[in-house]
Amino acid sequence: MGKVNIGIVGATGMVGRAFLKVLDEQGIDIGELYLFGSSRSANTKVEFKGKLHTVEELTEDSFDREMDIALFSAGGDVSKKFAPIAAKKGIKVVDNSSAWRMDKEVPLVVPEVNPEDINWDSNIIANPNCSTIQCVLPLKVLHDNFKIKRIVYSTYQAVSGSGVAGVEDLERGLNGAETLNYVHQIAFNCLPQIDDFLDNGYTKEEIKMIEETKKILNNQDLKITATTVRVPVIHGHSVSINLEFEKEFDLEKVYEVLNNANGVVVQDDIKNNIYPMPVDIEGKDEVYVGRIRRDFSIDNGLNLWVVADNIRKGAATNTVQIAKLLIETMELAQIL
Amino acid sequence: MGKVNIGIVGATGMVGRAFLKVLDEQGIDIGELYLFGSSRSANTKVEFKGKLHTVEELTEDSFDREMDIALFSAGGDVSKKFAPIAAKKGIKVVDNSSAWRMDKEVPLVVPEVNPEDINWDSNIIANPNCSTIQCVLPLKVLHDNFKIKRIVYSTYQAVSGSGVAGVEDLERGLNGAETLNYVHQIAFNCLPQIDDFLDNGYTKEEIKMIEETKKILNNQDLKITATTVRVPVIHGHSVSINLEFEKEFDLEKVYEVLNNANGVVVQDDIKNNIYPMPVDIEGKDEVYVGRIRRDFSIDNGLNLWVVADNIRKGAATNTVQIAKLLIETMELAQIL
Repeated sequence: MGKVNIGIVGATGMVGRAFLKVLDEQGIDIGELYLFGSSRSANTKVEFKGKLHTVEELTEDSFDREMDIALFSAGGDVSKKFAPIAAKKGIKVVDNSSAWRMDKEVPLVVPEVNPEDINWDSNIIANPNCSTIQCVLPLKVLHDNFKIKRIVYSTYQAVSGSGVAGVEDLERGLNGAETLNYVHQIAFNCLPQIDDFLDNGYTKEEIKMIEETKKILNNQDLKITATTVRVPVIHGHSVSINLEFEKEFDLEKVYEVLNNANGVVVQDDIKNNIYPMPVDIEGKDEVYVGRIRRDFSIDNGLNLWVVADNIRKGAATNTVQIAKLLIETMELAQIL
Repeated sequence: MGKVNIGIVGATGMVGRAFLKVLDEQGIDIGELYLFGSSRSANTKVEFKGKLHTVEELTEDSFDREMDIALFSAGGDVSKKFAPIAAKKGIKVVDNSSAWRMDKEVPLVVPEVNPEDINWDSNIIANPNCSTIQCVLPLKVLHDNFKIKRIVYSTYQAVSGSGVAGVEDLERGLNGAETLNYVHQIAFNCLPQIDDFLDNGYTKEEIKMIEETKKILNNQDLKITATTVRVPVIHGHSVSINLEFEKEFDLEKVYEVLNNANGVVVQDDIKNNIYPMPVDIEGKDEVYVGRIRRDFSIDNGLNLWVVADNIRKGAATNTVQIAKLLIETMELAQIL
């Protein structure tokens, strides 16, 4: 289909800027590039491939042009309002907010896990929560081989998950200044709250991990619980995952399955103190898995430690991978 | 019995200094105070109650004096060698290292949980691992009421758990300088390794949490797994605990049981974003429990978030509480 016209909503945010970087790296052949932001960031100049682009204020008319794909990362409210406007004009929207993820008509896609869901009859495709994405890559192949019965997630999430405001809050805190973004200080602290609380005692982030995992793995019978925690790390979410399988397994097979999984890197050499860590994965597109060991407290139990760059695979990379899938599908449709 | 003569081994370390502070706060009536350290810290002056005490180099003759109780916090090797020497001379040793904890002849005591174990026929009493102590306080009362079947621990441990060297490593890392204490950088990172690895893929710290919990709760049938992680926090360990009980429970009863538990503070008001956090608990002697919620992924499941000051309740406070129990026992013996 040749060149693709792409719009980016939230172009000046941390994920928005990462969209541009990853679009370039992945060699997407862009025709027109439209950048949108709030009235506050309108007229900001953003460089892409040596050319300066001017950010426009997002309005209801923004999608009245030849645009093939729009990548959204400007928060749930913006997506709720503007994604349907773009979709109605035939533009494929890949949305990084939580607004559409649990909508029954909207596919929730991790290209290595459920690429087929891109074919749902929907112009909006949702990009999952950052912590969820990095977990479902290893979980998918383990589920296919050993059938997952139950998952216990405990997360260690970086401040960049809250965008620039989160990173600035950590920096402020380290300098003894006051907290502006988070409910409590994040420097030298662990915040066992990400997003708002629900009446059942869980945070929205915890429920996202639980429900999105079920939707992506296409299995509502999975038993999942989660505790999500913000830690004073800039880049890279880590997750301690405890698994119970239906089937027996041997560890060698687990390594084999994970080693063969698309987008997964096994980093597990404890004799040399090698395991995934946030400081090592900045800028990486893969999901790193280590501390792989049998859980002796239960039949067919396994513990894992999973780390990924929350801005890359957790957000921008996955979104651009979805866009690539869409482009391939469009190209195929043109040939047929 | 009047005044008690106390020796402190490792008097210049972070826990050693905390021993002095807590001994003072708890109003222990000290007669003679003997401070011991390595040859490097010998002759250091340490203030206690307005008086300067000189640290002596620890030698095999150090315990040839009228000493009732010796508090050790100078690492496993020192305890392995010198605790038996002191014990043989009739001195009660309360040891903060891991050297004696799993010895079948040595009691492992958390005064709110298993004070009766102090009566074992042993002059060495072991103080448990810091992360374990803070977990067994809430777990004890929950176990008594609902019978624990399985525990999944994921920890978020502060650098002060590694003493001054750990704190300095975090500070160095935040200033962009090199790591000297930890295997990898701790600033802006999560290290999924605490202590050395064993052949089964677990770290010694993880096995400590598993085995010490069983010993303190006096139940070898408990099913436990653990993932222990160092985070860039100075003071205060946090633990995400997932529990499965044998018995049914209602949440109200859980709150009641925890509210009535000795040494436990329930801090759980999510409507006002209140839950335990490391930055709030520095210098506190209690164990803080929050994020109390049913785990819907399993029958009789519960999630908890537990935070305590690892140097206080996790080390010095618990050790001094054991010393207090010993003093009471000695006094009782004198009366009888």
